[in-house]
Amino acid sequence: MSLLTVGTVAFDDIETPFGKVEKVIGGACTYISWAASYFTNDIRLTSIVGNDFPVDEIKHLESRGVNMDGLKIVKDGKTFFWAGKYHENMNQRDTITTDLNVLDDFDPELPDSYKDSKYIMLGNLTPDIQLRVMEQLTAPKLIVLDTMNFWMDIAMDKLKKAISKIDILTINDEEARQLSGEYSLVNAAKKIFKMGPKYLVIKKGEHGALLMSKDQMFYAPALPLAEVKDPTGAGDTFAGGFMGYIAKTDDVSFNNLKRAVVYGSAMASFCVEEFSLGKMKSLDDKKITERVNSFVDLTWFNV
Amino acid sequence: MSLLTVGTVAFDDIETPFGKVEKVIGGACTYISWAASYFTNDIRLTSIVGNDFPVDEIKHLESRGVNMDGLKIVKDGKTFFWAGKYHENMNQRDTITTDLNVLDDFDPELPDSYKDSKYIMLGNLTPDIQLRVMEQLTAPKLIVLDTMNFWMDIAMDKLKKAISKIDILTINDEEARQLSGEYSLVNAAKKIFKMGPKYLVIKKGEHGALLMSKDQMFYAPALPLAEVKDPTGAGDTFAGGFMGYIAKTDDVSFNNLKRAVVYGSAMASFCVEEFSLGKMKSLDDKKITERVNSFVDLTWFNV
Repeated sequence: MSLLTVGTVAFDDIETPFGKVEKVIGGACTYISWAASYFTNDIRLTSIVGNDFPVDEIKHLESRGVNMDGLKIVKDGKTFFWAGKYHENMNQRDTITTDLNVLDDFDPELPDSYKDSKYIMLGNLTPDIQLRVMEQLTAPKLIVLDTMNFWMDIAMDKLKKAISKIDILTINDEEARQLSGEYSLVNAAKKIFKMGPKYLVIKKGEHGALLMSKDQMFYAPALPLAEVKDPTGAGDTFAGGFMGYIAKTDDVSFNNLKRAVVYGSAMASFCVEEFSLGKMKSLDDKKITERVNSFVDLTWFNV
Repeated sequence: MSLLTVGTVAFDDIETPFGKVEKVIGGACTYISWAASYFTNDIRLTSIVGNDFPVDEIKHLESRGVNMDGLKIVKDGKTFFWAGKYHENMNQRDTITTDLNVLDDFDPELPDSYKDSKYIMLGNLTPDIQLRVMEQLTAPKLIVLDTMNFWMDIAMDKLKKAISKIDILTINDEEARQLSGEYSLVNAAKKIFKMGPKYLVIKKGEHGALLMSKDQMFYAPALPLAEVKDPTGAGDTFAGGFMGYIAKTDDVSFNNLKRAVVYGSAMASFCVEEFSLGKMKSLDDKKITERVNSFVDLTWFNV
């Protein structure tokens, strides 16, 4: 089934304890679309870049089944740029530079061919843009929204308006606490469900991900890895694998959402093993199945 | 099968965002023995208290199948006292007071009836005391040692000597990194296995526990709870449930260690719901089975 992805397409400078790369391809929509492309080839990308963005990258995504009609290319514009440096423990990072560039004027007008999209993955962006996309949808089956503390700090009302219209919210544990004012994630989820969503995915980075509904919970750990080189994009890659799997299977039961969390976690575990999209561009079904089986081994027990 | 428990028996003052209690019963050995007592009634406790320690508490443990011949009661001595205050997020705490009192002279001489103990749980104490206990054992089947960063800071050589003689080490993720000098837990485990242990249990608090062997891994999440009142003793309660289950089943296969991690996690999830031993004194088999089933629901998926 069709999957609409919305978010940034970017250049990143990234420094981690394991190295440094400059002007590599990044952005939430890029990671989401790459991850999802291993599950479905009816992906509709919505974003904006300057004409400094490499045509090869656009063609590469097209070859993966990603429709790029919704990618606005601004003549004489510069692509969104982010530079960040990770601490020794990789769980914390400092943003060095954020140049919005063309993103500053992004008003996502969906191509007509996108409007009937069934599965919608709204990557982390201003709530205004996320709302603007939702307005144009004619028949969404499942809307997933990713956001972050930054929007809670400066645009909480708009964010809550956006959240009221979605099915699944993905945030990290601290953000769930900030959004709800509750420390316990169980109580936080209860309050967030009252805001609109039916499901909550709490992303806990190296500690895994927690899927919650009003009456069920599912915890998928992150796979312990020998090498984590670059956590950039791991959350978006999770979202892309999660949503790609749901779009492929066209099944929104809780049991299938659980499987989608496992597939999302598997994709994220690949993402962090190389800088930028390095690993994401070199996967195949066999590698993904093997990785998912590692999650089965990691979690299976009988009592 | 017989289970030997070694560690502190203490009075605690505890302050958390949910309340404050004074001079309640605490100590690693207490939590370990209480948790284990739901699985086996051949427990042999080794510790030291002053004659200020309530006789009722001793009798209560005896009634649970805990042999107290190894509890040295020092006339005119004062029981070990610890006071701590938890931060808003409950993952961090400040130690306000540590009065070693009788613990300062603790030289654990095992009663003859203890020396043939099969399963050994060495709670967090000086490596010297842990070594002294191990010297006296005649036929241990499985030795588990719990420790903390404090002993890595001031007694690393002795700690490494103790670790070289054990089967399973239980520490938290930061301690695994400190002990090994490796950030990745996979690489940390490899180095720690070279120090002696065959298995490593990494306790991640609210994020769960990770069991590792040279070629297998198992991750049990912590159960998300609506109310966490007091995390004190959760790690020891985990250890008590873990070891109690192993002693009961007398099976040290990896699959059974996995089950033991789940039972340990279930016991720890009870512990934190009340201050001190409040919840630990009110459990039964039915409640424990229900809680273990919650862990099955939390982690089960099929792909």
